[in-house]
Amino acid sequence: MEYKRISVSASGSYEIVIGNDLLGKTADYVKSVAKTQTFAVITDDTVDSFYGEKVCQSLSAAGCNICKYVFPHGEESKCSDTLMKIYSFLCQNHISRTDCLIALGGGVVGDITGYAAATFLRGLDFIQIPTTLLAQVDSSVGGKTAIDIPEGKNLVGAFKQPRLVLCDTDTLNTLPEEFIIDGMGEVVKYGMIKSAPLFELLETRTLGDIKEIAESIIEQCVSIKRDVVEADEFDKGERMLLNFGHTLAHSIEQYYNYTGITHGKAVAAGMRMITDIAEKKGYSESGLCDRLTACLERYKLNVRVEPTVPQLANACLNDKKRTSGSISIVICSEVGKSRTVKMPVDDFLKFLTEE
Amino acid sequence: MEYKRISVSASGSYEIVIGNDLLGKTADYVKSVAKTQTFAVITDDTVDSFYGEKVCQSLSAAGCNICKYVFPHGEESKCSDTLMKIYSFLCQNHISRTDCLIALGGGVVGDITGYAAATFLRGLDFIQIPTTLLAQVDSSVGGKTAIDIPEGKNLVGAFKQPRLVLCDTDTLNTLPEEFIIDGMGEVVKYGMIKSAPLFELLETRTLGDIKEIAESIIEQCVSIKRDVVEADEFDKGERMLLNFGHTLAHSIEQYYNYTGITHGKAVAAGMRMITDIAEKKGYSESGLCDRLTACLERYKLNVRVEPTVPQLANACLNDKKRTSGSISIVICSEVGKSRTVKMPVDDFLKFLTEE
Repeated sequence: MEYKRISVSASGSYEIVIGNDLLGKTADYVKSVAKTQTFAVITDDTVDSFYGEKVCQSLSAAGCNICKYVFPHGEESKCSDTLMKIYSFLCQNHISRTDCLIALGGGVVGDITGYAAATFLRGLDFIQIPTTLLAQVDSSVGGKTAIDIPEGKNLVGAFKQPRLVLCDTDTLNTLPEEFIIDGMGEVVKYGMIKSAPLFELLETRTLGDIKEIAESIIEQCVSIKRDVVEADEFDKGERMLLNFGHTLAHSIEQYYNYTGITHGKAVAAGMRMITDIAEKKGYSESGLCDRLTACLERYKLNVRVEPTVPQLANACLNDKKRTSGSISIVICSEVGKSRTVKMPVDDFLKFLTEE
Repeated sequence: MEYKRISVSASGSYEIVIGNDLLGKTADYVKSVAKTQTFAVITDDTVDSFYGEKVCQSLSAAGCNICKYVFPHGEESKCSDTLMKIYSFLCQNHISRTDCLIALGGGVVGDITGYAAATFLRGLDFIQIPTTLLAQVDSSVGGKTAIDIPEGKNLVGAFKQPRLVLCDTDTLNTLPEEFIIDGMGEVVKYGMIKSAPLFELLETRTLGDIKEIAESIIEQCVSIKRDVVEADEFDKGERMLLNFGHTLAHSIEQYYNYTGITHGKAVAAGMRMITDIAEKKGYSESGLCDRLTACLERYKLNVRVEPTVPQLANACLNDKKRTSGSISIVICSEVGKSRTVKMPVDDFLKFLTEE
């Protein structure tokens, strides 16, 4: 069968393959890009129980040498401690510079595995097999890898493009609804910043329809991300648009210690907060925040978060997008149109907190 | 006065400035390349006591905002624990992506600060101010950054070119003789792999002359390194020559838990071991090992190490230069001429251990 393929040309060129029943064919795709027969699969316990065997069997049957490292699921694992254990595992298994890591899982697995691939022995290849909607539409593409540190999420990381991304939409069948909702936060974001047609599609559907239209949604999101990443791989300008809602979202996640709220819900709340402010201050067209809120509600993303904007404002100053003395925020003027606004830190705090 | 300047064109272009009395002029050089007024100086307690104030005063007097992080000296500090503390310090001081780190110290400070600069917020600029001979001739140039992990030295790292390297030869005046000896291991290596004239110069001098000829030696070593790095920044071929003696040296250092022997002495021992074997097997001209040994003796590098080659052989398999199933070693056929020989792991073990 024909799978959808999207090519990315960044510091490394690679393909994103999208479709169902892909995991069982892992070896076919992996072997076409890898220069080794030796793979270290990194995954979490949940994903491993569903798909670990399928992926490893495909590789073993094709004659590959594989080893597998499994860590406990959850954002708390995306830390220095897990990273050191991964390094240790790679050493024990004599993984060399020309071998290849495979990230099998959601955003946490992809981010930390990618970061390990960027840094172990000063870098080796890795392949993304994202198994959550969030990872499929967002984190597996574009080469941002990271770990969290106590001071904040993703504050340590590297740009490292994968050699291949395999998006098997069948994995969404085992994904709890909460994780579908999580991913929809980013999907709505793509519509808001770059695609009125995508946003309008989302306005006609609800959460129950997602699996049916997953392939199309993933393809649209990934295409948008591809365009943005190709224009600005190292996040100096255009790529910041992908951060719509994220500066506040990161503060919200920090407020909840990264455990009390999903990334998608935090992004949804962040997008609404910044759009509410932008609309009141005349940066966005009238009614945009209501329209965004209504769309988010279709996907159970109408969350109320505890902290108020003024409570979150200071934590925003640790945002990676801050440059010396100023900070960039992303504002949508209307659905599908976004831009970054750079302002001095003091103005930013006023922008967030003054009526 | 005129300082020697060597330009490096790698993924970033930068200058290495060499001369005496440079530290007091830090700000002049730093400000000409930095796009920020905010600098985080990272150093160790020993270097800080000698030069911390001089560097910080120069920057402060020029209107820069500076913060300084000092960690305990020694290779044991080049670890994940220190790295996390550096990240934390950078967060607390609100260092942003457009700010700049300054590594003030020897190889440990340079390597870990460079690695922090490669990874904090996915990368920011950094400047090297090497204060040991070893760092001046070797580790501060070329963009290799790393930390040690329990399984081995430099096994985690990144390629990250500095924006500027300031080599103040006056810092050698406060450097204990042991550290001069340490640096001479690498200086002799440069002669062996690439420069008969440098090696011949070293054969006419002794340890006591070094400070007098430091500027010339540093310039020659850095020029060799520059040429090699420009030809092969990411260490896929030519750059491996710089690793002459290092595969065994890393095993020796590991044998002594990184504390019982200096890097320079380990490299000296590693060069002698591999040259002894290479000579016996006909890869090197007759008498080369004796000539190398005699030169090393002039700089008190005629060390006998406890472990034998067979005892070290297995630990060599964790070498970063190993590729799947094979390993590359560097051999000098004569003074100033070197090449890499790639061999399957089994052959490598035989090469090292069989008569």
